[in-house]
Amino acid sequence: MPELLSNTIKMIKPLDREAMDGARSRQDTMTKPQGSLGRLEELSIKLAGIQGRAIPQIRHKVIFTMAGDHGVAAEGVSAYPAEVTAQMIYNFLRGGAGINVLAHQVGARVVIVDMGVAAELEPHPQLVSRKIAPGTQDMFLRPAMTPEQAVRAIETGIELVGSEVAKGFDIVGTGDMGISNTTSSSAICAVMTGRPVSEVTGRGAGLTDEQLAHKVEVIQRALAVNHPDPKQPLDVLAKIGGFEIGGLVGVMLAAAAYRIPIVLDGFISGAAALIATVLAPRLKDFLIAAHVSVEPGHKVLLRHLRLKPLLNLSMRLGEGTGAVLGIFLAEAAARTLAEMSTFAEAGVSEKEK
Amino acid sequence: MPELLSNTIKMIKPLDREAMDGARSRQDTMTKPQGSLGRLEELSIKLAGIQGRAIPQIRHKVIFTMAGDHGVAAEGVSAYPAEVTAQMIYNFLRGGAGINVLAHQVGARVVIVDMGVAAELEPHPQLVSRKIAPGTQDMFLRPAMTPEQAVRAIETGIELVGSEVAKGFDIVGTGDMGISNTTSSSAICAVMTGRPVSEVTGRGAGLTDEQLAHKVEVIQRALAVNHPDPKQPLDVLAKIGGFEIGGLVGVMLAAAAYRIPIVLDGFISGAAALIATVLAPRLKDFLIAAHVSVEPGHKVLLRHLRLKPLLNLSMRLGEGTGAVLGIFLAEAAARTLAEMSTFAEAGVSEKEK
Repeated sequence: MPELLSNTIKMIKPLDREAMDGARSRQDTMTKPQGSLGRLEELSIKLAGIQGRAIPQIRHKVIFTMAGDHGVAAEGVSAYPAEVTAQMIYNFLRGGAGINVLAHQVGARVVIVDMGVAAELEPHPQLVSRKIAPGTQDMFLRPAMTPEQAVRAIETGIELVGSEVAKGFDIVGTGDMGISNTTSSSAICAVMTGRPVSEVTGRGAGLTDEQLAHKVEVIQRALAVNHPDPKQPLDVLAKIGGFEIGGLVGVMLAAAAYRIPIVLDGFISGAAALIATVLAPRLKDFLIAAHVSVEPGHKVLLRHLRLKPLLNLSMRLGEGTGAVLGIFLAEAAARTLAEMSTFAEAGVSEKEK
Repeated sequence: MPELLSNTIKMIKPLDREAMDGARSRQDTMTKPQGSLGRLEELSIKLAGIQGRAIPQIRHKVIFTMAGDHGVAAEGVSAYPAEVTAQMIYNFLRGGAGINVLAHQVGARVVIVDMGVAAELEPHPQLVSRKIAPGTQDMFLRPAMTPEQAVRAIETGIELVGSEVAKGFDIVGTGDMGISNTTSSSAICAVMTGRPVSEVTGRGAGLTDEQLAHKVEVIQRALAVNHPDPKQPLDVLAKIGGFEIGGLVGVMLAAAAYRIPIVLDGFISGAAALIATVLAPRLKDFLIAAHVSVEPGHKVLLRHLRLKPLLNLSMRLGEGTGAVLGIFLAEAAARTLAEMSTFAEAGVSEKEK
């Protein structure tokens, strides 16, 4: 395994149990019935364990919205034409997309990364250009990328987190843009969870019944052509993945290495997590599932990862939009733990024995 | 029926269908797959119908946290002593409670109202004193309040909204504080939904099995003593309600009259909504259920009101803490509708036919 990747994985340490005990004890002294903030309390304790401090802090928030095109789009698996990937990048850069609006609401910065869009994008001060290739190959016919490209995609994600860490950040949200990337994600989900393709494949941005059946066939064929090995996550990424998915794998690994909580967006982020958690099993403890989307594979993979989503709002937009809502809840969890008064401070009587 | 109350009810008009159509059409032109923001889209359309404008706006946010004590606390139905109601008011005023922290996060103002706390509270510039009486009577023995007090509690809530409207506000969250108010709410829930007391009664702030059984018996006895009539919501409020619950009924009625969306907090707010929606059936369309709490009666009453909660985070703190999280989502719904670019504006290709 290449050095940057293996070193990053080695840097991932277990959660800090002492910090978690500290957070748990503090929760029980605060002016509220014990446990009455429910999942926000659990989340605050998890954040403490990840950040390694009894009072976690969520101030600097970064969303990585990674974009890439997919050769398999040529097989007619998407409701939108492939040029929408590039068009949406420009929309992100102008601030007109869902992710821009929601990130602005919670005060998160969005980092837009061209991991492999099939178009020459005009330079823009807010566009991070790390194009591995102009889209993947068509996995219906051959591997989506070379093994070297798969590693490069992951290492790019690692490097991007590294350069953000210098500026300081407390939580990361994962986001994606890429026409046909639910096709790649369903393929990854089927391989990594062992579930049938038909069970983990959905309508993406809006397929009809007939188009959905075709999408399932395309994925089944792609798996037959490529034989990805679930025990070899780099093999899976190379054969049926996407550049943005590889980038997200790297973001997750590096964030965990730096003890930064990772808020997963939807199905594409989940597919990246399936790969990343086999590369680094300890990563799982650093993941927070923001929501469960309407893509059927998302529920399957969250169960496989033993992650319970915070929200269930029937969303399926991607871009990091679900992750932003999860970051809001993480901030609520951290703030209540940090800022509420204790019974002693407030002079409030405790529970009767 | 007294004039202020009946006039307020008369002011409640149906949702604005034209504004809803406008919001729905706009959703379908924005740069995202149709429907991909899921429940946020539905919510934006509801907000449009309530506010009567195709692009609703959520800027000025107010939480009414209404407090009152309950005579039935003398029957040992709560995990905390009754003096905690007053102690928590001081905690609210110092900014140390859960509601303060979460409201600050979303930029909401919290209005703390003494509707009937059983203590002389020190004056404070942020405490609104509207004490009807120092706590209700013990409903285990007699009606909790007189019919006049019940009306006065509701009218107080109406007046408070009226004086806030002058300052301008776009959304209201309901909140409560009152030791033993889950006992009153379970009683109201049983009467108004027709479900057995045992099914709609829970552990409140943390009762044991034995204490819970005792709470159920106390409520059953209170119903037998008082015979509240579910067709007479003012009778129900007077006999087994609370001053803060009456205040919340008034807040809801007045907010709907002024076309302000109402974000319901937990079980106590839900009990108030059961009374308010019988007084004014049109009110139901103005209610947004922020979350479902762990109190078993909350799920029952939300189903009865045909409201689907936005969140399910196992919370049970009250104060308006769940409502604040719901307000965040309402703001997200309104912002995405208002601020996202359309396909035409962004030059993004639409779905392939």
